[in-house]
Amino acid sequence: MNIGIIGATGYTGAELLRLLAGHPARPRVTLVTSRQDEGRALTEVFPALSGAANYDSLKFEAPEAAQMAGRADFFFMAAPHGAAMGLAPALLSAGARVVDLSADFRITDAAVFEEWYQPHSAAGLLSEAVYGLPELYAARIAKARLVANPGCYPTSIILGLAPFLRAGLLAEDRPVIADSASGVTGAGRGASLGTSFCEAADSFKAYKVVGHRHTPEIEQELSKLHGRPLTLAFTPHLAPMNRGILSTIYVTPNRDVGPDELRALYRDFYRDKPFVRVRPQGFEPQTSEVRGGNFCDVSLFWDKRTRLLKIVAAIDNLCRGASGQAVANFNLMNAFAEGDGLALPALRP
Amino acid sequence: MNIGIIGATGYTGAELLRLLAGHPARPRVTLVTSRQDEGRALTEVFPALSGAANYDSLKFEAPEAAQMAGRADFFFMAAPHGAAMGLAPALLSAGARVVDLSADFRITDAAVFEEWYQPHSAAGLLSEAVYGLPELYAARIAKARLVANPGCYPTSIILGLAPFLRAGLLAEDRPVIADSASGVTGAGRGASLGTSFCEAADSFKAYKVVGHRHTPEIEQELSKLHGRPLTLAFTPHLAPMNRGILSTIYVTPNRDVGPDELRALYRDFYRDKPFVRVRPQGFEPQTSEVRGGNFCDVSLFWDKRTRLLKIVAAIDNLCRGASGQAVANFNLMNAFAEGDGLALPALRP
Amino acid sequence: MNIGIIGATGYTGAELLRLLAGHPARPRVTLVTSRQDEGRALTEVFPALSGAANYDSLKFEAPEAAQMAGRADFFFMAAPHGAAMGLAPALLSAGARVVDLSADFRITDAAVFEEWYQPHSAAGLLSEAVYGLPELYAARIAKARLVANPGCYPTSIILGLAPFLRAGLLAEDRPVIADSASGVTGAGRGASLGTSFCEAADSFKAYKVVGHRHTPEIEQELSKLHGRPLTLAFTPHLAPMNRGILSTIYVTPNRDVGPDELRALYRDFYRDKPFVRVRPQGFEPQTSEVRGGNFCDVSLFWDKRTRLLKIVAAIDNLCRGASGQAVANFNLMNAFAEGDGLALPALRP
Amino acid sequence: MNIGIIGATGYTGAELLRLLAGHPARPRVTLVTSRQDEGRALTEVFPALSGAANYDSLKFEAPEAAQMAGRADFFFMAAPHGAAMGLAPALLSAGARVVDLSADFRITDAAVFEEWYQPHSAAGLLSEAVYGLPELYAARIAKARLVANPGCYPTSIILGLAPFLRAGLLAEDRPVIADSASGVTGAGRGASLGTSFCEAADSFKAYKVVGHRHTPEIEQELSKLHGRPLTLAFTPHLAPMNRGILSTIYVTPNRDVGPDELRALYRDFYRDKPFVRVRPQGFEPQTSEVRGGNFCDVSLFWDKRTRLLKIVAAIDNLCRGASGQAVANFNLMNAFAEGDGLALPALRP
Repeated sequence: MNIGIIGATGYTGAELLRLLAGHPARPRVTLVTSRQDEGRALTEVFPALSGAANYDSLKFEAPEAAQMAGRADFFFMAAPHGAAMGLAPALLSAGARVVDLSADFRITDAAVFEEWYQPHSAAGLLSEAVYGLPELYAARIAKARLVANPGCYPTSIILGLAPFLRAGLLAEDRPVIADSASGVTGAGRGASLGTSFCEAADSFKAYKVVGHRHTPEIEQELSKLHGRPLTLAFTPHLAPMNRGILSTIYVTPNRDVGPDELRALYRDFYRDKPFVRVRPQGFEPQTSEVRGGNFCDVSLFWDKRTRLLKIVAAIDNLCRGASGQAVANFNLMNAFAEGDGLALPALRP
Repeated sequence: MNIGIIGATGYTGAELLRLLAGHPARPRVTLVTSRQDEGRALTEVFPALSGAANYDSLKFEAPEAAQMAGRADFFFMAAPHGAAMGLAPALLSAGARVVDLSADFRITDAAVFEEWYQPHSAAGLLSEAVYGLPELYAARIAKARLVANPGCYPTSIILGLAPFLRAGLLAEDRPVIADSASGVTGAGRGASLGTSFCEAADSFKAYKVVGHRHTPEIEQELSKLHGRPLTLAFTPHLAPMNRGILSTIYVTPNRDVGPDELRALYRDFYRDKPFVRVRPQGFEPQTSEVRGGNFCDVSLFWDKRTRLLKIVAAIDNLCRGASGQAVANFNLMNAFAEGDGLALPALRP
Repeated sequence: MNIGIIGATGYTGAELLRLLAGHPARPRVTLVTSRQDEGRALTEVFPALSGAANYDSLKFEAPEAAQMAGRADFFFMAAPHGAAMGLAPALLSAGARVVDLSADFRITDAAVFEEWYQPHSAAGLLSEAVYGLPELYAARIAKARLVANPGCYPTSIILGLAPFLRAGLLAEDRPVIADSASGVTGAGRGASLGTSFCEAADSFKAYKVVGHRHTPEIEQELSKLHGRPLTLAFTPHLAPMNRGILSTIYVTPNRDVGPDELRALYRDFYRDKPFVRVRPQGFEPQTSEVRGGNFCDVSLFWDKRTRLLKIVAAIDNLCRGASGQAVANFNLMNAFAEGDGLALPALRP
Repeated sequence: MNIGIIGATGYTGAELLRLLAGHPARPRVTLVTSRQDEGRALTEVFPALSGAANYDSLKFEAPEAAQMAGRADFFFMAAPHGAAMGLAPALLSAGARVVDLSADFRITDAAVFEEWYQPHSAAGLLSEAVYGLPELYAARIAKARLVANPGCYPTSIILGLAPFLRAGLLAEDRPVIADSASGVTGAGRGASLGTSFCEAADSFKAYKVVGHRHTPEIEQELSKLHGRPLTLAFTPHLAPMNRGILSTIYVTPNRDVGPDELRALYRDFYRDKPFVRVRPQGFEPQTSEVRGGNFCDVSLFWDKRTRLLKIVAAIDNLCRGASGQAVANFNLMNAFAEGDGLALPALRP
């Protein structure tokens, strides 16, 4: 199988290349595109990849839709929001299958997408695109031509809430709050003052406190699980670390539900899902336990004084929250085991 | 004036020494105690302090209450919880004044203290002790013999909520949630696996998700401001940085209150308070803006979709959340300007 | 094949478990020992390993030599210096093969070992033990019963200097200086004030400026390459990062040798060695390019003003400098490809 | 006294403002210039400075030489190399005094400057400019109109070597090597990929391994101390921290000189210099001990095996290596105590 990676010059592109280098099916990357690094050797831009797979022989090319389609059977699109919608139709028409890591195909309702992002030039594909969260949609992913890989914050929050909502436990008329912290890779690879070392190191900040674009994506999936529209209060923070997202979620249950019952419920929900670890009573998740891997750690805390359930979920934003999940989707779409190429545990420390 | 510092071997002790070295009244530290470092030179333990004030001439002594009282007029107690209650009575009896940085005298109700901490051996002093938050209690602090210096998380959360609660804006029957992240100095100076570099660096975790001991202290003060008992859902997190606390607080107002009205309310409340900066619309607080200083940055965000007010407050946990606030209390107790010795802005980066 | 890991509770033990989880030969870890964590589940101590291989079923056991020998065919010894010499004889006698990650068998001359470390209780094995640097000793490693896995600093310095010394280029009577910086994992997993987050973060220090114990090991190997005794000035530093060693080495060549000639010499020396990357002119090595992987990056800088050659070598201290190299030795000893289980490039960022 | 700060939008500008806010003489900053932030409020760009001195009332202005001269009596120039030479003549002509933090006036020989930097448009001032290292040139600084504030690396290396060279102890024909590591603020405030958090965090690299521009400045001063031309091998490294430089220096003495004799020599040399701390035997300097302060820590290590003296010197690159030293020069030029405004010890942690 020949693989193309569109927008391979960012951190999610590099992470895809890292993971594919160890994939047991030895998929062959035949095309890497980048506007800004066109013409440069892949391993000049990413020296860490030198010596792995066939990477020393690859050069970044410009993303020309017409030419790309014949160069690979399977595409990962890791370009910024807005680019995938322009390229995907031609790739699909040429018979390729696509996992898109941008937001372009995550939101089913074009009007909602356009309210939060921009006009959509390929809205006709929205109904076909499958939201690539394997724990919820594995069967549909397996048959998809176009998978919309979930966002990083959404992955942690949806996995944290899915069993609770599916069980109908959410008290109506109570806020659902997700307070999340992300490592700096979440801002992408590039030069900006705000993500420079000296501005981000040894500091913690809230950002986009109201109106982060991941909100509608999360609400779409939570509402499906809940069976009714659900509004989320979401606050992202920036933590001085490379990778990782930890989401602390606050919900009010609609009935007395003990921690043991809840944990059993979660374990049952994720029974055959290899990448969600429902942790034991009292386990305090931390992002280093999932660094570089595809796991999501979930821990449940019942606060009887306030009658709030606190759910803490941790993922690696680049791996589980982006490229690792994309590889899992690639596996499902190709009838490989979901975990192929994702066997290595966290790099810790 | 002669100053004694009890338990000077921790980070709050060292921070007191740092700040006092630049105090314009040139208070003289005559006594530093430490059980673990008894007999060692102060600047052997803290080489950074060498060359400042008279610090090269000081040695750590054991904390013997009988002898200490005559050695200084004013004591900072920076020992672990439980130690201050044993030493304070003798110091006060001998005529000294005391700022205690531990939790021992923060909670007025001995039964509540004992539920969350341990038996109290000097409960008779609880009614006399003044909670040392200058923005709320400056007049009482000025006359106090014994000031209970607030905890670090409580400082950020109480300052973040005080104007809102005092204005009677809290909707009843809605949760008050404070989601906070702290730097690792919050865990104190010492050797433990969990706060070792390799466990804490490049990682973010939730801890003591239910039942952190700062809860009753915060609830005591918030309830006073609110005028009725108030229960708080509080979740601390550990961020990979030395200093800083950022608290993101979620409340539901009981009436439509626009962001401009709210900001005006906050600015009015903190009008003559030099160390609270109510930030303009859209300002995203971060802990580096207050690193090493005594400021608290407060920013307000109204989320109309969820009808939640998000209040973000940032402090330096060691300075404003401990030793800087203790120096401010020392200033008030001695009729100095509140900001003496606290003039330097944040060390940034 | 059944694998035992002695002293599996440290960072090198955990790193071995991480790497073996992805090894294509699926070696089965049947025994993990730890004195301090005896009786605890492996994945309770290392939650990151949960869900990988058979690790959720393992419990730490005490290291009883008599019982261990029958439990595995192959042992990695990751215990502190001094422990391996006590356990290795029995394991070898029982027919097992051993890679020892401690210093116990690295120094051929028992007198030298005892001068720098402690009395040696198994000196009879020193002549049999093979120094496990595959680039120099692959053939001997392949036949060895006992491999002494090199130290982290030595790996970077020896790989940096080997081609230069083997070519006879070192000017006599000139110092050989290695100035190295290491991440904090080099100090091991444990609780100590000096390696606590708040002491090590945002700081850089020199330590053991004279007399670091890796000195005789490095000199032994450099002297063999040089063909005469060679004395090394070695200065280690502690950098605020988890992993990585970067060594900047200063030597004076005994003749004019241009950078191109030198680079060709290095490339020739490492031609068939998959894990040394001789970098192009001007490449500035950094530890993140090798984080989590088994590569050593080497770059050469000729300073014509001072007539010094500066050689910069970067490795991951835990992987290439310990457990990754141990897996490479395991591979060679079992006729696997040297790179099996080591295919994943650096985790970057 | 009215102060102007040219190029106040970088980290050294902000550091000057931080220090001047606590200066006991209460110098008044009347002018801050910045091309990129012209028209913006100072505290919008540096929120940390809000509430200090008169900073909330200042706006960045364009640096127009004609108008600046009348606005202040004393100027700190913190602009990039090349800008000061264009502005200084007019300021001096108008009667102001100047401390320039750039390299423009550090190198006495215009030809050397032009070889390493660029053409010099104000070479006529080079002979008048005083190299602003107070430990060497305090008397001349006190009378100067124009002080060239030393570079950060040079400060650490010259202070580390001055007593040794002045005593005539350097063996001829032996290399002098300075291996230094710097925090990321050394690269200035701005957006670039290489100093972005995710590229610099958790990594250590060598850079400009040959030919760093600080070389001629260091050699100029070392040669003066040595009494003969001296060539330096200098290798800078980038460490993942905000502030700090640690230089490990290697020299060969020309006679047997014990560590006690050397330490006495150093202590004598720096006897009345308040900001150099010659540390006791075995002290391992680290940058956190000088973070945010004006001290230079120096420690001496005699390696008898290699007959090399290792000198380790630590400073804060932004404070002692730039703005703190500039304030010390300002103090000397105005007959204040050298340490005015520099009393606070390191912020630690």
